[in-house]
Amino acid sequence: MNLHRTADKLGITPKKLESLQENILRRSSWPEPRLQRFEKASSGIEAGTSIFDNGDIVHGYPKIKRALVLDAAIRKYFSERIAVEEKMNGYNVRVASIDGEVVALTRGGFICPYSTEVVSRLIPEELFNDYPEIVLCGEMVGPENPYVPKDIYPTDSIDFYLFDISRKNWKGTLGVNKTHEFAKAYGLLAAPMLGEFRIDRAYSEIVRILEDLGKKGREGVVMKDPENKASPVKYTCSESNCNDLEVAFRYYNDYALDFFVSRAVREGFQSAEWNESEEARLARALRIGKSILLPLVDTVKKKMNGEQIVQQVQIRVRNIQTARDFEYHLRRSGIKAIFDQPEPDDEGGYLVRITKLVMSTNDKTQALIEGEMW
Amino acid sequence: MNLHRTADKLGITPKKLESLQENILRRSSWPEPRLQRFEKASSGIEAGTSIFDNGDIVHGYPKIKRALVLDAAIRKYFSERIAVEEKMNGYNVRVASIDGEVVALTRGGFICPYSTEVVSRLIPEELFNDYPEIVLCGEMVGPENPYVPKDIYPTDSIDFYLFDISRKNWKGTLGVNKTHEFAKAYGLLAAPMLGEFRIDRAYSEIVRILEDLGKKGREGVVMKDPENKASPVKYTCSESNCNDLEVAFRYYNDYALDFFVSRAVREGFQSAEWNESEEARLARALRIGKSILLPLVDTVKKKMNGEQIVQQVQIRVRNIQTARDFEYHLRRSGIKAIFDQPEPDDEGGYLVRITKLVMSTNDKTQALIEGEMW
Repeated sequence: MNLHRTADKLGITPKKLESLQENILRRSSWPEPRLQRFEKASSGIEAGTSIFDNGDIVHGYPKIKRALVLDAAIRKYFSERIAVEEKMNGYNVRVASIDGEVVALTRGGFICPYSTEVVSRLIPEELFNDYPEIVLCGEMVGPENPYVPKDIYPTDSIDFYLFDISRKNWKGTLGVNKTHEFAKAYGLLAAPMLGEFRIDRAYSEIVRILEDLGKKGREGVVMKDPENKASPVKYTCSESNCNDLEVAFRYYNDYALDFFVSRAVREGFQSAEWNESEEARLARALRIGKSILLPLVDTVKKKMNGEQIVQQVQIRVRNIQTARDFEYHLRRSGIKAIFDQPEPDDEGGYLVRITKLVMSTNDKTQALIEGEMW
Repeated sequence: MNLHRTADKLGITPKKLESLQENILRRSSWPEPRLQRFEKASSGIEAGTSIFDNGDIVHGYPKIKRALVLDAAIRKYFSERIAVEEKMNGYNVRVASIDGEVVALTRGGFICPYSTEVVSRLIPEELFNDYPEIVLCGEMVGPENPYVPKDIYPTDSIDFYLFDISRKNWKGTLGVNKTHEFAKAYGLLAAPMLGEFRIDRAYSEIVRILEDLGKKGREGVVMKDPENKASPVKYTCSESNCNDLEVAFRYYNDYALDFFVSRAVREGFQSAEWNESEEARLARALRIGKSILLPLVDTVKKKMNGEQIVQQVQIRVRNIQTARDFEYHLRRSGIKAIFDQPEPDDEGGYLVRITKLVMSTNDKTQALIEGEMW
């Protein structure tokens, strides 16, 4: 890469970029095109920003801040109106065309071979011909999502939902209205727009929306300024907080400690702010307690019965090489997984079942049932 | 202190002791007698070990390991029989006489002025005349315990329950039978002995004991080898785990993250091992959920009503200077607290109400209800 030109595009000095290359940037030579990625945020540049060898930069998508007290956050961060979009529950990728080749970048700035195959299939080719500089920011969701498999969306496999648009070599985003117009124009799925409200009645409308989403097992909402003048803010349903707890306690020794506590604290704030009836509050308490206890019991009993604690996921690929590449991609991401033989499906592709090993929980539980102390 | 003699008593080289003095040992000059304390464990010496200027050493009481799977732990750690003692829920101190002066040492190895006054009152004077080398290891419990106030014990104020005996300049302990004989001989309260069982029927007996203790709000049990040939092992009641959660979530931003998760995980293992009915398991889930949700809601609502998040405790002292000294002791322990004016009581002493500030939870909750993000 050209040091001066890249530094200039990033808005930092060449000297600063040189020092970042030593400490923050990591080279990723596979799959091509080659790139350097920001392993963490630095100098105002988001983590996951990728600098390709041809000079193209795809900035990391900024982390969306979370409200704990919804009404107060709405009034503090937004001015007149608020657009409410569904928050999709999957993993997020940025899709760009680099020298004519479409790639899907993970949050960390790696090219994911599986996501790349999926989006290449789902995104019409003319889109990048029409807008070669565009970066599509979207969520990969569905049951064949190998990180967060979910049956709650209208797909049997995996889909890409657009939630924002950016451009290469640019830190900004185009915001909610342009994103939905664009999705419509190219027939892309987009995170559903659930309404636009005046600030003074937004809270009650959003609570109603959240209750409805919660019943459907959906994650929550992202609130956006229709004029794109404020950063988006997210807020999640109780059911989603509890579902997170359920997954985390099933693999209790493989999750970061703040993951558990943050979900519980969200529930406390929501219950307090929503002024629930005694009955609704007890129902929430039972929901929380079940999300904690039942997966733990299940994990311990499984291990007592001599079973391994593993996580089963699956992907569906057109090209068998994509599965092999994805296996390598998971390994470099620090995930231990066993890939079954690909099974040909009816549509000329392959179903690949993957067993993700949850080593820490597995070993810890084994030791504890053998009488080890904690 | 005499470097060579002290090193010899600790079983380390003088050179090693010198290096510990630089890195691990901390001087405590107040209240007298002066001492140096092990801020953490090192070279096989427990954290909280105190070396007095006169050469006396009081070793830290070893941390008691916790079973997560009761039956397996019993079979793994004990050989023939097992003595079951109630685990008292308070804070633990070691009491010794240094040059004729009785002092109560905290876990950290500080002299606690309040505990010292209490034990000086509760422990008969002749005890240390008869056994000047003895170290009494016990738990301070009751409603006027300023750390863990509990109404579940038969005292209106605070009591000292002996649970083990050691000697100055010696790392060992005398074990369960000698401890109870000794307590009886001197009229001291001791952690109740709940039975002694053969290993093969210990599990079912202990489960019965735990269910009974749980109903009374007691903490749990400590299992000991009657011959003192194995280290003790602890195990707690569901009600106590949930009670811990309740306190921690009330002050959610002031507790370490592992505190929360460990309690939940204990519940999962207990529920799995005890093979509960569906009904009992759901009751446990509700108990866990309530212990998390209700204190959180309470904290958030208090703050929404403009109240400070604080913890009210009280102590009762004979000598008004003890309260002043204890105020300083809390401050040096990193606890922020406001002491009310002492109120004379009917027995010639003083009741002192203390408001412990929970700054982190207080400030965080305030920011969140003003719409700050997390």
